[in-house]
Amino acid sequence: MASPTIKLNSGYEMPLVGFGLWKVTNETCADQVYNAIKTGYRLFDGACDYGNEKEAGQGVARAIKEGIVKRSELFIVSKLWNSFHDAEHVEPITRKQLADWGLEYFDLFIMHFPISLKYVDPKVRYPPGFTYDGKTVVPGKASIQETWQALEKVVDAGLARSIGISNFRAVLIIDLLRYARIRPATLQIEHHPYLTQPQLIKYAQGEGIAVTAYSSFGPPSFVDAGMDSAKGVPSLFEHDAVVEVAHRHNKNPSQVLLRWATQRGVAVIPKSNNQNRLAQNLHVNDFDLSQEDLDKISSLNKDLRFNDPPSYGVNIPIFA
Amino acid sequence: MASPTIKLNSGYEMPLVGFGLWKVTNETCADQVYNAIKTGYRLFDGACDYGNEKEAGQGVARAIKEGIVKRSELFIVSKLWNSFHDAEHVEPITRKQLADWGLEYFDLFIMHFPISLKYVDPKVRYPPGFTYDGKTVVPGKASIQETWQALEKVVDAGLARSIGISNFRAVLIIDLLRYARIRPATLQIEHHPYLTQPQLIKYAQGEGIAVTAYSSFGPPSFVDAGMDSAKGVPSLFEHDAVVEVAHRHNKNPSQVLLRWATQRGVAVIPKSNNQNRLAQNLHVNDFDLSQEDLDKISSLNKDLRFNDPPSYGVNIPIFA
Repeated sequence: MASPTIKLNSGYEMPLVGFGLWKVTNETCADQVYNAIKTGYRLFDGACDYGNEKEAGQGVARAIKEGIVKRSELFIVSKLWNSFHDAEHVEPITRKQLADWGLEYFDLFIMHFPISLKYVDPKVRYPPGFTYDGKTVVPGKASIQETWQALEKVVDAGLARSIGISNFRAVLIIDLLRYARIRPATLQIEHHPYLTQPQLIKYAQGEGIAVTAYSSFGPPSFVDAGMDSAKGVPSLFEHDAVVEVAHRHNKNPSQVLLRWATQRGVAVIPKSNNQNRLAQNLHVNDFDLSQEDLDKISSLNKDLRFNDPPSYGVNIPIFA
Repeated sequence: MASPTIKLNSGYEMPLVGFGLWKVTNETCADQVYNAIKTGYRLFDGACDYGNEKEAGQGVARAIKEGIVKRSELFIVSKLWNSFHDAEHVEPITRKQLADWGLEYFDLFIMHFPISLKYVDPKVRYPPGFTYDGKTVVPGKASIQETWQALEKVVDAGLARSIGISNFRAVLIIDLLRYARIRPATLQIEHHPYLTQPQLIKYAQGEGIAVTAYSSFGPPSFVDAGMDSAKGVPSLFEHDAVVEVAHRHNKNPSQVLLRWATQRGVAVIPKSNNQNRLAQNLHVNDFDLSQEDLDKISSLNKDLRFNDPPSYGVNIPIFA
């Protein structure tokens, strides 16, 4: 069973539920992608920074080779890393990432962060992460406008069908829309019941920009990533409000958390190492929460953001 | 007694305490400015939008004419309104505002909001406020870069000694610093114990941008402005923590609230219609709060923002 889709402002359809590749290990990535395709996933959300684009591409290639899916039925997302914001680096790195995947085009190519860092040659270190030399964060010189206009040329060159942004606040989107020739098709943000961001979502959707949630389950992704700030936070899977709604609908808490997003038009990209949960996460659009259920879950908001660069030693306060 | 000053990155000195002209009525403005100068105020924080620049200029002219102060001893701040963000309108409106004040240059000219609105001819309506026609908010086409570069030309033309920004979030400053030829000298933000914004202040000060607080007392300015959201909020003047610190230092709560800012290097621009309080507000740098006092007041933070355009019907969510 395939996920329902959202029609993007670029004219393309994007699945409402996809598979997120952050923290998928190199060892398991090809198999996980292959199995996810077999399970019905069509959207894969990758990034240079995740360091597993070659392996993800291998999983895709195997599924295509076996006739399980056609390229045109897949929706492959990747992201431009911070070190490649300078105009002259955008197209070359896009081509390298496409080569890693073994693809001719991305369905969606996203500016990962509104952060320009000094260029690191992929021959020296890849993916480079936040530091220039493995130790120091060195800012780059590209404005958001320079980088966005280079991404527009990636579309012109046929290397990406749609382009998007991630980790932007509204005021930077407002500014970007003043100079964008091609509007962002999507905005990807951290979004879970502890960080609901209703004003930002309303603004983006009102501008015809589809919103994708990452870290839909809140703390666990960040506990896995070793982030202390996430450790003391009550799990959403066990939160009374979520459990009560899940019980009433005869669903799992994870399905309720995903449906809480998709029912409000927010796309999701969960990942799972577990085949059962993988299947369950895809089946989150065959039931409806009541407005009361949605509000109950939204009321858990405490503006609690985990993916904030200063919290992991990168002193670039993009959310301040 | 004059206020201590901060040295701006433009090389000029800015008083740490000034007089804010928002909501000063046309009837009383000239006298209030004149009296404030007599009391020792040297910085006046005005704006097109406050609608009282002519009257403020009359108060300044009277004080200069009477020999109470020289122009060179004053620090006059004004602001570029949203309707004048298009490059071609920036210098003409600056010249009009200077003419209203009767001045040859501003010490500091600030982009009032990161919001571009459609141009309204001053002959049609001035100040224009947030609407194009008295009813509808119509966005403009200028990017922040276009407007900033026009402000840089205002400096080149000798019409402003320093230029600054207001109501910016950090991510927009990060972007602006990529293309700015002249860096912003100051950032003016809403700042009081209910909205402390430590990450933003640390970032701006770290970049050599002086921070000025507006609405240092929190709710009262907005209650006066008829904003419902401010009405139910406990007054900071009567808050136990503030009163206790004030009592211990033998100061008024307002002085403690201002000192809490200035001691952390944040300039303030209170206003008062009351001659006694006017004098008291200026005398806020002759005592020191302990770190414990500062922390106690900072701990009142609840990220409570009053000056948020959507809260007064302008659906441009610059803080989302």
